[in-house]
Amino acid sequence: MADSLRIALAGLGTVGAGVIRVLTENGDLIARRAGRPIEIVAVNARDRSKDRGVDLSGYAWEDDMAAFADRDDVDVVVELVGGSDGPALALARKTLAGGKGLVTANKAMIAHHGMELAEAAEQAGVPLRYEAAVAGGIPAIKGLGEGAAANRIERIYGILNGTCNYILSQMEGSGADFADVLKDAQELGYAEADPTFDVEGVDAAHKLAILASLAFGTRIDFGAVDCSGISAIRAADIAQADQLGFVIRLIGLADCTTDELGPRLFQRVAPCLVAKDHALAGPKGPTNAVVIEGDHVGQLLLQGAGAGMGPTASAVVADLIDIARGFNPPPLGLPAAMLQPSTPADPAGRRNRAYIRFTVADRPGVLAEITAALRDAEVSIESLIQHGKPGEDGEPVLVAMVTHEGPEGSVAKALDLLAGSPALTEAPLVMRLID
Amino acid sequence: MADSLRIALAGLGTVGAGVIRVLTENGDLIARRAGRPIEIVAVNARDRSKDRGVDLSGYAWEDDMAAFADRDDVDVVVELVGGSDGPALALARKTLAGGKGLVTANKAMIAHHGMELAEAAEQAGVPLRYEAAVAGGIPAIKGLGEGAAANRIERIYGILNGTCNYILSQMEGSGADFADVLKDAQELGYAEADPTFDVEGVDAAHKLAILASLAFGTRIDFGAVDCSGISAIRAADIAQADQLGFVIRLIGLADCTTDELGPRLFQRVAPCLVAKDHALAGPKGPTNAVVIEGDHVGQLLLQGAGAGMGPTASAVVADLIDIARGFNPPPLGLPAAMLQPSTPADPAGRRNRAYIRFTVADRPGVLAEITAALRDAEVSIESLIQHGKPGEDGEPVLVAMVTHEGPEGSVAKALDLLAGSPALTEAPLVMRLID
Repeated sequence: MADSLRIALAGLGTVGAGVIRVLTENGDLIARRAGRPIEIVAVNARDRSKDRGVDLSGYAWEDDMAAFADRDDVDVVVELVGGSDGPALALARKTLAGGKGLVTANKAMIAHHGMELAEAAEQAGVPLRYEAAVAGGIPAIKGLGEGAAANRIERIYGILNGTCNYILSQMEGSGADFADVLKDAQELGYAEADPTFDVEGVDAAHKLAILASLAFGTRIDFGAVDCSGISAIRAADIAQADQLGFVIRLIGLADCTTDELGPRLFQRVAPCLVAKDHALAGPKGPTNAVVIEGDHVGQLLLQGAGAGMGPTASAVVADLIDIARGFNPPPLGLPAAMLQPSTPADPAGRRNRAYIRFTVADRPGVLAEITAALRDAEVSIESLIQHGKPGEDGEPVLVAMVTHEGPEGSVAKALDLLAGSPALTEAPLVMRLID
Repeated sequence: MADSLRIALAGLGTVGAGVIRVLTENGDLIARRAGRPIEIVAVNARDRSKDRGVDLSGYAWEDDMAAFADRDDVDVVVELVGGSDGPALALARKTLAGGKGLVTANKAMIAHHGMELAEAAEQAGVPLRYEAAVAGGIPAIKGLGEGAAANRIERIYGILNGTCNYILSQMEGSGADFADVLKDAQELGYAEADPTFDVEGVDAAHKLAILASLAFGTRIDFGAVDCSGISAIRAADIAQADQLGFVIRLIGLADCTTDELGPRLFQRVAPCLVAKDHALAGPKGPTNAVVIEGDHVGQLLLQGAGAGMGPTASAVVADLIDIARGFNPPPLGLPAAMLQPSTPADPAGRRNRAYIRFTVADRPGVLAEITAALRDAEVSIESLIQHGKPGEDGEPVLVAMVTHEGPEGSVAKALDLLAGSPALTEAPLVMRLID
């Protein structure tokens, strides 16, 4: 058997410990599949003494992970530290510049600095792989960048954040409100102590920006993702969606058209109403699912665990096996220099049905004001439901409606007309329908 | 850009024409992704004059596809002729022996001769790839052999035949019987004029045998697949399943245990009752879906079009792109010499719930005879439904039941006890439950 692929592990949290477990438990099998053993040479973490349930005694310890890049006995550095900048980025730069391969699960770093890192990897002729950064254990990067590589990708969308999917499906099952379910999710370890990145859609936006680049041959443009989260969703919205035949899911979606000015990239993370018979309505709990639509393959669905020790470690080690087998395609599907800059697409002309929920003061004339604004903006209402009884003490009332298919610009115009109206006690919530 | 990857296409049926279309329409994009153009040099088919809707004028024509193996201007032969033996196999052997790569969509050939061909490819150091042979456009071979390569695979199962899935979902929707739906499917082109290979499960068994080898590191053993089809399924079975909360799907399933005698491989293709909330209940029409269960990644689902020009061509060209990128892993995941021979697992001890449908003469005492046999075999009945009214002219009556979870051996014993009974007017139909 050929020489080992020698790796150094930076970060021994859940995923790092998972990688050690996978490589220990399945080491023989992995060596046979990879054609050579994958050998952990050195490890690093903040706290050397912490018990991680794995035996570290056979590995060299580095207090400073940057030292990995200088070690002659390391072929590939596995970065599991996290954070878009700081030590993770410094390590990534030094590793690639030093001619070593890099495997990372760091979606924030790839979303922010993937272009630079891909260029550095290509220049050095070393692999940069990040399967674990998108959709956990699902081979989404491989499925899109290799499995669907014969296709012009028309659209990519999916459930990219397990925490949000857990919260939404729990709300569905229990009828509880967002805040209560979030608290439970935090206690169960499905949500972080500071859940902002997850529940506000930032984590999903990181993943979407990476997928969009790979799908459309455009430079990663995380800053252009139109991003909203799930914290405004109420139990009443979920009940309403249910009655209409939908569930609510946080969906990341990207497509791309080209005009005389080049690619117009649309990237949005937002809660959507997904028809109950759609494939993306199925996944409950912390599951992720990615739909790839290509001009020849049609629709592909890839689904699995979006996070967790085993699934994420599985993706990291899959990257290592590819590297051990000598596979080194361009990190972003095309050579970085070929990736095109894009302009954000104007969503005003996109046509879809929308769910709009107003929270209104309980007094006469409010409904007339809302419907007049919708009429003036040429938004056509398919169904309207005044939800719940008027509050006893003049509490706000929810008014939900579904529009006929029409341009997003019209809905935006209606909301502009209503902006500042004392009839609305909070900002309206708009969610598009996927059916 | 590097030199072209030069290919020869044997077979210009639907898939062959599809490959020409993909490489023509997306040629520039594919060249950028692959790092080099993929160029069709020569083609072959039975009838040179037939209009296939693609322009063949730029390609050399060979009346005898075996000549591809001798052409110095061909790097990879794409075999889309079909058939497990005969000209396709001869071409495959000659191609690999001559040091050229082979891409094929031929599931029958790989199921029967994959071991020999993998050995030949490894010996010559050339790629052998067959993504299109299993589950059409879905990257199932890539997902299992690369995406899940860090895992010990625990089970692989799925919907592997689009024709059967089309027929079953049409029966579901229309209440029609098998024969009528098959006729419609043939008229619509979803079923062949001779549908035996599809509806009797042979096609799915070819695919399952390939997946099982890749999953469990065992030699391909198509002959050991326990295979039954869907032709015995009646509208009444589907209605009954529906009432119980299930749909009927043709499922290929494989798992593997190891004892002192080596791997015990279980491979079965059979119609099953799939719970309506299971991921495999979702796919309607000619869709395929593959579930991979690994010890670290958990459950992955890959779903998409199982056949057709575009999807199958997409998979063929994905293989070509991998080859153009220089990727050449062992065709069966492990070097062929490492694949282990296996013994078929005895299903008698497998525990599951079963749906059993008897077709019985409409006379007193029949039910007592059946239930006595089940009791004597220690099969415990969860629910029993005498379906339909007694026939006016003493027509047979259907009696369906669902058992509690128990060993398959007990069900087999009960059926043995009833074998030859004049009470039964045809062989009982047994389908396992997946929930």
